[in-house]
Amino acid sequence: MKKVVGFGDFLLRLNPEGYLRFSQADRMMTYYTGAEANVCVSLSTMGVKTEFVTRVPDNDIARAGLMQLRKYGVDVEHVVFGGERLGLFYVEKGASQRPSKVIYDRKYTSIATAKPADFCWDVLLQDAGWLHITGITPALGEHLPEICLEAMRTAREQGVAVSCDLNYRKKLWTSQQAGSVMGEILKYVDVLVANEEDCAKVLGICAPDTDVEAGKLSREGYISVARQVCQRFPNLRAVAITLRGSISASDNDWAAMLYTQGEAHFSRQYHVHIVDRVGGGDSFAAGLIYAMGHGFDAQRSIEFAAAASCLKHSMEQDYNLATVEEVLTLMDGDGSGRVQR
Amino acid sequence: MKKVVGFGDFLLRLNPEGYLRFSQADRMMTYYTGAEANVCVSLSTMGVKTEFVTRVPDNDIARAGLMQLRKYGVDVEHVVFGGERLGLFYVEKGASQRPSKVIYDRKYTSIATAKPADFCWDVLLQDAGWLHITGITPALGEHLPEICLEAMRTAREQGVAVSCDLNYRKKLWTSQQAGSVMGEILKYVDVLVANEEDCAKVLGICAPDTDVEAGKLSREGYISVARQVCQRFPNLRAVAITLRGSISASDNDWAAMLYTQGEAHFSRQYHVHIVDRVGGGDSFAAGLIYAMGHGFDAQRSIEFAAAASCLKHSMEQDYNLATVEEVLTLMDGDGSGRVQR
Amino acid sequence: MKKVVGFGDFLLRLNPEGYLRFSQADRMMTYYTGAEANVCVSLSTMGVKTEFVTRVPDNDIARAGLMQLRKYGVDVEHVVFGGERLGLFYVEKGASQRPSKVIYDRKYTSIATAKPADFCWDVLLQDAGWLHITGITPALGEHLPEICLEAMRTAREQGVAVSCDLNYRKKLWTSQQAGSVMGEILKYVDVLVANEEDCAKVLGICAPDTDVEAGKLSREGYISVARQVCQRFPNLRAVAITLRGSISASDNDWAAMLYTQGEAHFSRQYHVHIVDRVGGGDSFAAGLIYAMGHGFDAQRSIEFAAAASCLKHSMEQDYNLATVEEVLTLMDGDGSGRVQR
Amino acid sequence: MKKVVGFGDFLLRLNPEGYLRFSQADRMMTYYTGAEANVCVSLSTMGVKTEFVTRVPDNDIARAGLMQLRKYGVDVEHVVFGGERLGLFYVEKGASQRPSKVIYDRKYTSIATAKPADFCWDVLLQDAGWLHITGITPALGEHLPEICLEAMRTAREQGVAVSCDLNYRKKLWTSQQAGSVMGEILKYVDVLVANEEDCAKVLGICAPDTDVEAGKLSREGYISVARQVCQRFPNLRAVAITLRGSISASDNDWAAMLYTQGEAHFSRQYHVHIVDRVGGGDSFAAGLIYAMGHGFDAQRSIEFAAAASCLKHSMEQDYNLATVEEVLTLMDGDGSGRVQR
Amino acid sequence: MKKVVGFGDFLLRLNPEGYLRFSQADRMMTYYTGAEANVCVSLSTMGVKTEFVTRVPDNDIARAGLMQLRKYGVDVEHVVFGGERLGLFYVEKGASQRPSKVIYDRKYTSIATAKPADFCWDVLLQDAGWLHITGITPALGEHLPEICLEAMRTAREQGVAVSCDLNYRKKLWTSQQAGSVMGEILKYVDVLVANEEDCAKVLGICAPDTDVEAGKLSREGYISVARQVCQRFPNLRAVAITLRGSISASDNDWAAMLYTQGEAHFSRQYHVHIVDRVGGGDSFAAGLIYAMGHGFDAQRSIEFAAAASCLKHSMEQDYNLATVEEVLTLMDGDGSGRVQR
Amino acid sequence: MKKVVGFGDFLLRLNPEGYLRFSQADRMMTYYTGAEANVCVSLSTMGVKTEFVTRVPDNDIARAGLMQLRKYGVDVEHVVFGGERLGLFYVEKGASQRPSKVIYDRKYTSIATAKPADFCWDVLLQDAGWLHITGITPALGEHLPEICLEAMRTAREQGVAVSCDLNYRKKLWTSQQAGSVMGEILKYVDVLVANEEDCAKVLGICAPDTDVEAGKLSREGYISVARQVCQRFPNLRAVAITLRGSISASDNDWAAMLYTQGEAHFSRQYHVHIVDRVGGGDSFAAGLIYAMGHGFDAQRSIEFAAAASCLKHSMEQDYNLATVEEVLTLMDGDGSGRVQR
Repeated sequence: MKKVVGFGDFLLRLNPEGYLRFSQADRMMTYYTGAEANVCVSLSTMGVKTEFVTRVPDNDIARAGLMQLRKYGVDVEHVVFGGERLGLFYVEKGASQRPSKVIYDRKYTSIATAKPADFCWDVLLQDAGWLHITGITPALGEHLPEICLEAMRTAREQGVAVSCDLNYRKKLWTSQQAGSVMGEILKYVDVLVANEEDCAKVLGICAPDTDVEAGKLSREGYISVARQVCQRFPNLRAVAITLRGSISASDNDWAAMLYTQGEAHFSRQYHVHIVDRVGGGDSFAAGLIYAMGHGFDAQRSIEFAAAASCLKHSMEQDYNLATVEEVLTLMDGDGSGRVQR
Repeated sequence: MKKVVGFGDFLLRLNPEGYLRFSQADRMMTYYTGAEANVCVSLSTMGVKTEFVTRVPDNDIARAGLMQLRKYGVDVEHVVFGGERLGLFYVEKGASQRPSKVIYDRKYTSIATAKPADFCWDVLLQDAGWLHITGITPALGEHLPEICLEAMRTAREQGVAVSCDLNYRKKLWTSQQAGSVMGEILKYVDVLVANEEDCAKVLGICAPDTDVEAGKLSREGYISVARQVCQRFPNLRAVAITLRGSISASDNDWAAMLYTQGEAHFSRQYHVHIVDRVGGGDSFAAGLIYAMGHGFDAQRSIEFAAAASCLKHSMEQDYNLATVEEVLTLMDGDGSGRVQR
Repeated sequence: MKKVVGFGDFLLRLNPEGYLRFSQADRMMTYYTGAEANVCVSLSTMGVKTEFVTRVPDNDIARAGLMQLRKYGVDVEHVVFGGERLGLFYVEKGASQRPSKVIYDRKYTSIATAKPADFCWDVLLQDAGWLHITGITPALGEHLPEICLEAMRTAREQGVAVSCDLNYRKKLWTSQQAGSVMGEILKYVDVLVANEEDCAKVLGICAPDTDVEAGKLSREGYISVARQVCQRFPNLRAVAITLRGSISASDNDWAAMLYTQGEAHFSRQYHVHIVDRVGGGDSFAAGLIYAMGHGFDAQRSIEFAAAASCLKHSMEQDYNLATVEEVLTLMDGDGSGRVQR
Repeated sequence: MKKVVGFGDFLLRLNPEGYLRFSQADRMMTYYTGAEANVCVSLSTMGVKTEFVTRVPDNDIARAGLMQLRKYGVDVEHVVFGGERLGLFYVEKGASQRPSKVIYDRKYTSIATAKPADFCWDVLLQDAGWLHITGITPALGEHLPEICLEAMRTAREQGVAVSCDLNYRKKLWTSQQAGSVMGEILKYVDVLVANEEDCAKVLGICAPDTDVEAGKLSREGYISVARQVCQRFPNLRAVAITLRGSISASDNDWAAMLYTQGEAHFSRQYHVHIVDRVGGGDSFAAGLIYAMGHGFDAQRSIEFAAAASCLKHSMEQDYNLATVEEVLTLMDGDGSGRVQR
Repeated sequence: MKKVVGFGDFLLRLNPEGYLRFSQADRMMTYYTGAEANVCVSLSTMGVKTEFVTRVPDNDIARAGLMQLRKYGVDVEHVVFGGERLGLFYVEKGASQRPSKVIYDRKYTSIATAKPADFCWDVLLQDAGWLHITGITPALGEHLPEICLEAMRTAREQGVAVSCDLNYRKKLWTSQQAGSVMGEILKYVDVLVANEEDCAKVLGICAPDTDVEAGKLSREGYISVARQVCQRFPNLRAVAITLRGSISASDNDWAAMLYTQGEAHFSRQYHVHIVDRVGGGDSFAAGLIYAMGHGFDAQRSIEFAAAASCLKHSMEQDYNLATVEEVLTLMDGDGSGRVQR
Repeated sequence: MKKVVGFGDFLLRLNPEGYLRFSQADRMMTYYTGAEANVCVSLSTMGVKTEFVTRVPDNDIARAGLMQLRKYGVDVEHVVFGGERLGLFYVEKGASQRPSKVIYDRKYTSIATAKPADFCWDVLLQDAGWLHITGITPALGEHLPEICLEAMRTAREQGVAVSCDLNYRKKLWTSQQAGSVMGEILKYVDVLVANEEDCAKVLGICAPDTDVEAGKLSREGYISVARQVCQRFPNLRAVAITLRGSISASDNDWAAMLYTQGEAHFSRQYHVHIVDRVGGGDSFAAGLIYAMGHGFDAQRSIEFAAAASCLKHSMEQDYNLATVEEVLTLMDGDGSGRVQR
């Protein structure tokens, strides 16, 4: 498939080793991530040409981050240098009944202060076949909604498919703000990804009899939500919803549904013993883009995306480093985890 | 609530990284702990003023230990310097069917050779509202029973509540010795904490049809034990018993019972996937002291204590670094371990 | 029991810390292992005198490896120095649905280029009571089948018992090659160890209605396989088959069967939460050798071997560092993993 | 001596292990520092009562930082919570001809957005005998000059001695801005600390024939600078200038001069083999405050300050953890570094 | 300047942490290096477009290595997959009087078994302006001399400049073999780099009165050697010789000479306190290529190359991660290693 | 040469990583050492058969320590199990002007409470050719002088050579006690090793005009001391004195003198850049035993011992892991630390 372009935030992730709490740590692991960057890394690992677009300060920390993307095969040629700081976030990994904790420090960053003139979308999307953003990007700064819309309009003009992961972050904006901006953006989207809460919080679309917090949406509930979303945004080719069952911080159930052409397709459900769940949603989006970009049918598409993100949960960091072969082995196999010699 | 004073042993804890056995390790993690110190740290993390009293040698290792307590907000102003050594213990963390292993080296320590004149309880308990010791402290050295009793008598005189965790350690003394000394000490105790085996080993109080080793005490059995204890020590306001179901070194069931005013209150049961279970009992005692010191009713008290110690199992080290908010979220919520952003 | 001699490959094992993938690691843990060396270490830890025979290059890395064996009590006095390189393999530890990955780099090694004249079996087996090899050893190089057969003939002459773990490795040779060579070797073997696939791949012996990949062999199937093997090789005193149920890379069921004197004995089944499963089979062989070498009856022998290898899964590295006492405690106890203070 | 209060920035320091460059690191050491906080830690380690005043966001990272100060005995009771972020900086440790590199990310922090009303200096200086700030603090944000001046006026009113380390940071403000603000602040200062460049850049005071960059100021030059400073600010009781001779990033010469009552006193010069030089100036200020606060004469004061900061260079982190005894041993001894058993 | 292509070996480097000896280490740092790969990384860090050509096995370890090159900006698009193994070497870092130790395991590797047909030099050199190899490459395997010569002939045809670092390795071939092969190769070389011993061992060219081992070649001796080399290979545009003065494993003197157009130019001499000296020669070659490729005059070229490699000695790993700005700062400055804030 | 037996203390050594102070460390490196054990490890590394005799508690920590000795080839077959604890000590590594700090916790250990009946010297010295102890051993406990004397008398009876390192430790006993006990022991000693202070403190033997603290003993002074010692103990075959010049905690001068048959032989002097100097004296004793045991002449003996201990300073831990070849290379070479490929 043609190049996939991701556009969004880029942050330094800091987390204590193992299960130490912040106050116990005298060192932290350092990675460079971001929702759309993660999607690019996953796709690149699957052999797809990708490019990540963002804006970072002109210093060695930002450059180290770009190097890491380049390592995993993501092109960063058109990253814009400027602004004052790279965002960052701290992750304290949870276990058992103790939830993971994330502290963001992503204001006043180079991307948050970006201006429309920083990005020349005609050029950026030149060889692209697919553009991916998440609901985080337009929430980052004053000009970001405008920049995102310009990107999407250019994509439509150039025949570039667009996917969007709703990814609502309540610390970045309110439901109202998100609903208003995303309502515009979604008009340009072909494939929408959302988790259980996003549709309710951003679009105000719920299923009857839903208790989102408890993750107790029924099969019918998910289908109902997807149908409503497609009705409101008829441009959507497909809506994918991830279904996380949080048993504890160490164990989750994980499955997903793809709603397309009026039909709902549910993936197999996985019981995952979690190594690191940050980036789980991004790996799902990447898997879905891969599958749809390679012409998988709907059922295989959702199985591929679910299996890809299932594997992500077994890896440290935000990146999904699963190859296509590994994903296919899982989705077509028994997930028994036998040693591969 | 007023200041809680803990009095007891203070040791360097050494453990290999991860699941390495002693012979495989070329470095060990170093923490400074002790049953009552752990209680102080947990309470301090919950916002309670605490002070820890012990006796340590005048060297940089002991000082590093006191600094660690100070870091977590525990006052160590009245720690006595003297004697020759800081005790220590080695922990080899178990997994699955392999049990954790603990090797103690706690003889001839500064606390073990303490004399009554080392501690001026009038001063030490001046601003205190609560005194906590465990059954380990009087077992440490020749003069410790006397010192503990003096502490407790002073507490009674000054209206300071007293809690005691039976904590029987067969390597420190025999059942007979423990029974004789603890029988005296318990006369001054308001709140007693015990695990499944302590009451049988120290007080000779069992339920009918009990197989303690197998942890197969029935609900009725626990109530019977608590009732007998309260009959023998009518000064006891409450008896709390922790109920650990050891599935393996990696997975435990965990619950607790509070017996007070002739009624038994059982907490919800948690299935914990263990990060480090050392300090589990101490975190329970701290949770109980917090709840009772803040006037929680019996049911919420035992729920709070059980939830607090449930969270402890998800943390490295002996300390429970759960905040009041985290404990309440667990006891009032679903323990699903969702990421907190 | 008398000295056990192991003969086989010796490799440097490299694996990233924790659950990092190869591309994420900037350091790797280094151990020195090998199927037969692992058996020696386990037996040595159980108090049995052992010696390991191999051929390694004359350099500091090989010497560091031998030092590690010596640390665990394995005699390496007769290791032959020569050749050009020590083999190595890389292990990426899997988790949940992601399988562990092993990359071998074991060609052209000192052992692979060994010649019959390198080993004087009369001397090597002088004080030995037992010789152990695996199906890996004859597959390593041109002269290895011959060397192995010479070892076994000498063993028979000197009244040394011989055990063999079939251990088929498809990257080293084909089923045909393995079948032909192992068919000769097995004529000298007293105790045969195999896992689910080995008998089918090497000896072409299957049970009716078997799906080896899925690990769905029935009890009857295992018995049938063992019976057929014993019929073909009447010299076999006993055939042991390990039964691994791969739930995921993190969780396995584990049990084993011993077939001897026409009777099948099944061990208890363990649910293991895996720390590191490499070396699981070797620890089973060691447990079995210990039990049979100490005259345990058939049922206790298979229980001992299964419990020993169950414990291995809870340890890092390939070595089983469980003592006899620890194994007995597990096989006679409840596996509840209570802390040992 | 009475309590010393420090007021200023508080940052998370991140640095790769050892001599790795930023792009090579996948983890960083994490400490919490700040010029005035470092002074407090050093004084506290020397047994002086200290308190650190700053403004930090209400999150677990900031709290972990305050815990670290508390560990080293610094009171943080009056730290103000508010604002959005904790500042941070990245340090890449240099060696030989490669200089250390520092990247700051300290804008928009809680302290930078502080308002005068956040600090009630009457209360904050109640039990204090000494107030210490650096030239970094007034440069941090819009209201900081005003806040600093208010602190100093209150100090003068309450008879609290004031020390100031010029500490010019060209990334925070221009020479002009610094000169104007510091010119006001210095009117309230009793003891001034400066390094070779500060006086020239901030106060425009140079010695004749100076090449500051090359560190080639003559003895007479230093005296001339100090004399001029004292003439402009007659309130100054003493001016101390540190004399660093940068041989390489691994080796420095280090000495200092104290100018007081019209006389210049030079310390002995040390050749230091550097472990970590960040915090060197702060440790000098702390040593000087200790010496002057304890009534040392001028020569012993500058010897003490120079020896204290010499020792700092042999320690990791920004903190000087040298005790008074260690400093005296060095200044009165031969610095031969014999093992202390 | 146009793209620089490097061709040669690619190996996994393993070294214990810090100064541990091999037998003390239970983990090793892992990097992926090679003489020509190092040159590419250094040039890429300086902003030059580079590509590295080699042959590696098709496995995750080799791919992790290529990812690391890609991270540092080196194009690896035309790396050939095939063969059985990636070479590796173990480094034990020396200190003071204890020399570093290197153990190679680089036989039978994918590059050693490469065939001429694996590399299509017309394509590989298409956009290149410079080709760099070392004397290691033709020594690696049977067909490597032929492959190298083909590369060089193609380079000459396409007007690509060629540099070669003699880099004699006595474990790979004899002086005779090296002399014969390199004698052919040097006919195509424009710029030759050599250290003190190479010219004597490979070309049999010595200065009168030389004691190479002791590094006591005089200025005149170096000039004499360079002159003789240029006389034998009149195609050489320039000969550069590095001058290492080994004081100890921790301290070296370092300088270099460039002989071109009949004139010798000596760089300034640096006293380096060593962090890691492996890769020192490669960083010199990279610096020289950069300088000559950018039209620096002879004196500035040799100063640039010497300063670049001086900085390399202050970095961990084989790579020189110095930027052009850093090199210029050193060569034009005083090397005093002041902190860069 | 025949087996060398060492007898003495055996301790766990704990030290923070790198140059961290005790209060900064959350993990410590763990090794198992002891003066005589170190001598055995060094000799074993040089190919000499060695056995170490001590008494340790019957627990996994002690066993891990013995495993480590076994790893380095030291026989521990006759180590006695009993008593309560393994001694330990904490090392904080110094740098530059900051001295290393050692905190001992070696009282009440298994060796300190040993009784004469624990050691059957007839058996222990059966195949031995040499017995080595230090002045630490008799200072450890009540019965140790007696045990040592019995060992030495047995040695004399069986024709076993005896060496002793005076090694005065003021924390273990007074000069008077040491003088009295060592005066007896030295009557049985053939080779005496001492550092600059030992002779004065233990034997009261000084040179005229000596300032021991400053290490300013003249050549003549050293000779005078050795001569006096030999006069008092005519049984001494040789007296070796190490000459450490402490420039700083990072840099030392190191040389030694051997006085034998009325002649003094001085070794070459080394300037050592220190990695870890603990164990420096032990490595010297080992080098001397090796040289004298292999019949080196006096000059080569002292050169060998000095070179061996010079190399020790470049290694982490207490052990000298230098081979005979490495020592000879240094003593016969230039110590330039060139890489050994």
